[in-house]
Amino acid sequence: MATPDPRDHDVQARLTRWRTRADAALAAALDGVEGTEPRLLAAMRHAVLLGGKRMRPLLAYAAGHACGASEEALDAPAAAVELVHAYSLVHDDLPAMDDDALRRGQPTVHVAFDEATAILTGDALQALAFSVLAQSALPDARRVAMLAELATASGAAGMCGGQAFDLAATGAGSITLDSLERLHALKTGALLRAAVRLGAIAAGADAATRRALDDFADALGLAFQIRDDLLDVESNSATLGKTAGKDAAQDKATFPALIGLDASRARLRTLAQHMDDALAGCGGDTAPLAALGSRAIERDH
Amino acid sequence: MATPDPRDHDVQARLTRWRTRADAALAAALDGVEGTEPRLLAAMRHAVLLGGKRMRPLLAYAAGHACGASEEALDAPAAAVELVHAYSLVHDDLPAMDDDALRRGQPTVHVAFDEATAILTGDALQALAFSVLAQSALPDARRVAMLAELATASGAAGMCGGQAFDLAATGAGSITLDSLERLHALKTGALLRAAVRLGAIAAGADAATRRALDDFADALGLAFQIRDDLLDVESNSATLGKTAGKDAAQDKATFPALIGLDASRARLRTLAQHMDDALAGCGGDTAPLAALGSRAIERDH
Repeated sequence: MATPDPRDHDVQARLTRWRTRADAALAAALDGVEGTEPRLLAAMRHAVLLGGKRMRPLLAYAAGHACGASEEALDAPAAAVELVHAYSLVHDDLPAMDDDALRRGQPTVHVAFDEATAILTGDALQALAFSVLAQSALPDARRVAMLAELATASGAAGMCGGQAFDLAATGAGSITLDSLERLHALKTGALLRAAVRLGAIAAGADAATRRALDDFADALGLAFQIRDDLLDVESNSATLGKTAGKDAAQDKATFPALIGLDASRARLRTLAQHMDDALAGCGGDTAPLAALGSRAIERDH
Repeated sequence: MATPDPRDHDVQARLTRWRTRADAALAAALDGVEGTEPRLLAAMRHAVLLGGKRMRPLLAYAAGHACGASEEALDAPAAAVELVHAYSLVHDDLPAMDDDALRRGQPTVHVAFDEATAILTGDALQALAFSVLAQSALPDARRVAMLAELATASGAAGMCGGQAFDLAATGAGSITLDSLERLHALKTGALLRAAVRLGAIAAGADAATRRALDDFADALGLAFQIRDDLLDVESNSATLGKTAGKDAAQDKATFPALIGLDASRARLRTLAQHMDDALAGCGGDTAPLAALGSRAIERDH
């Protein structure tokens, strides 16, 4: 994938604006929760509002934009995918899971609050994701399609299933490259793909465009995970905003561990080309999607 | 509430048939999960298929029946509310929450499997609940309304919020009767009410009928919880299928602890009358709803 032209201020300005919109949509969703227990709501805000790259909301805006949707139509899907992502991080960080104390440069929810509150926080954020979609202003048929997509992508056949494959693989010794790719296609890829798909559904995109966007999203999801694995090896906790070097310490299956650093980096270059090829099959303005693809591959945290 | 006429075989036979339908709908929902990790799916089945009174599915069928819906139209809402209930039990039983080893006479999910799997199992069951509703055959507008209702009832403004109030109240010393009722209106009541509401939505019930059903559901929810508190005092673990006497051991706020056993039983009788009054305001065949109201008050487990 070509590096975005540094003179292309429009694209970067657009991504910055969408990020602000996503933050506003998330804050509005949390403000809309009425009459709940104050500590639970504080923990939900901690989990959602203290940072994050907002990659999934940006993908929803960028995919919807490529298909001609208004920004207003994309606020709900953008917020919903980020709420699912945020809930999954809260639960992943629990002592019984990855047992991580640091996330986005902040104490994790079970550290800042307590473990029971962290479990409830994740549960409530998942419900809020579906609530935001169900109460959005889009036509009923599109809301139902988005709800079905998000439920499948985040559940046992998607993200939760990927987590379970990851649990099964950790410390289990050898894992094949095919198994590792399937694991990540579910664990990380399913929700990234859902972000792109929700944007396309909100826009009412045609089937051919949606297939091209699926191809883009699949390549991006895998690239995102390979970059994540590389960052865990190459980076330090201060830059990363979470504990570095944990994969090796926990004997996690990773691309660098399985195929080496050089082959992992080469694979990233191939996936960049796949993303370019896929976007060539979409009409509309795909420059923001291309910029997000580059960001997934080049990010340093 | 009048005790159901023992000669009323039709009502009991109908409830038994709905229970079988609910079990079949739940099994079908789990069978529909494709390509997931086998241990996760086994844990999901353990959580859902090993028993339970199916009170929430029966309420959905009974409310929908009172409003003229077909049984086929009620399978999805019945399964969805039970999936949310099942996920909440899996998470409630975790060591960081109630730390319970026995549920429905079986080892809890984190005991039979492990804690990480139990967290993922709850998460995946919640997603499956929304998936089942989103993919049901009902008109789009009714699916959206059911999804919005279930998301609100199970999230921070409903069930999860009630859990958080319960955490805050446990061991905190005195709690007012008003606070205890609000806690249970969210923790237990919100999902029981959602079960009734989903049935009514699936049937396309009018606003007056839905208000009457809401009144019925609110009384039933509170009665259900008072009976639960009484059972924890009066019963033993073998009858209950879960650990008895835990409320007092954990210094939980309960109705018997707050107002005494006699006043708790008197409150149940008042709520039975409220249920009767509410059902008098509904058209249609409300006999199954009345039977479920009696069951909630008279059950011994």
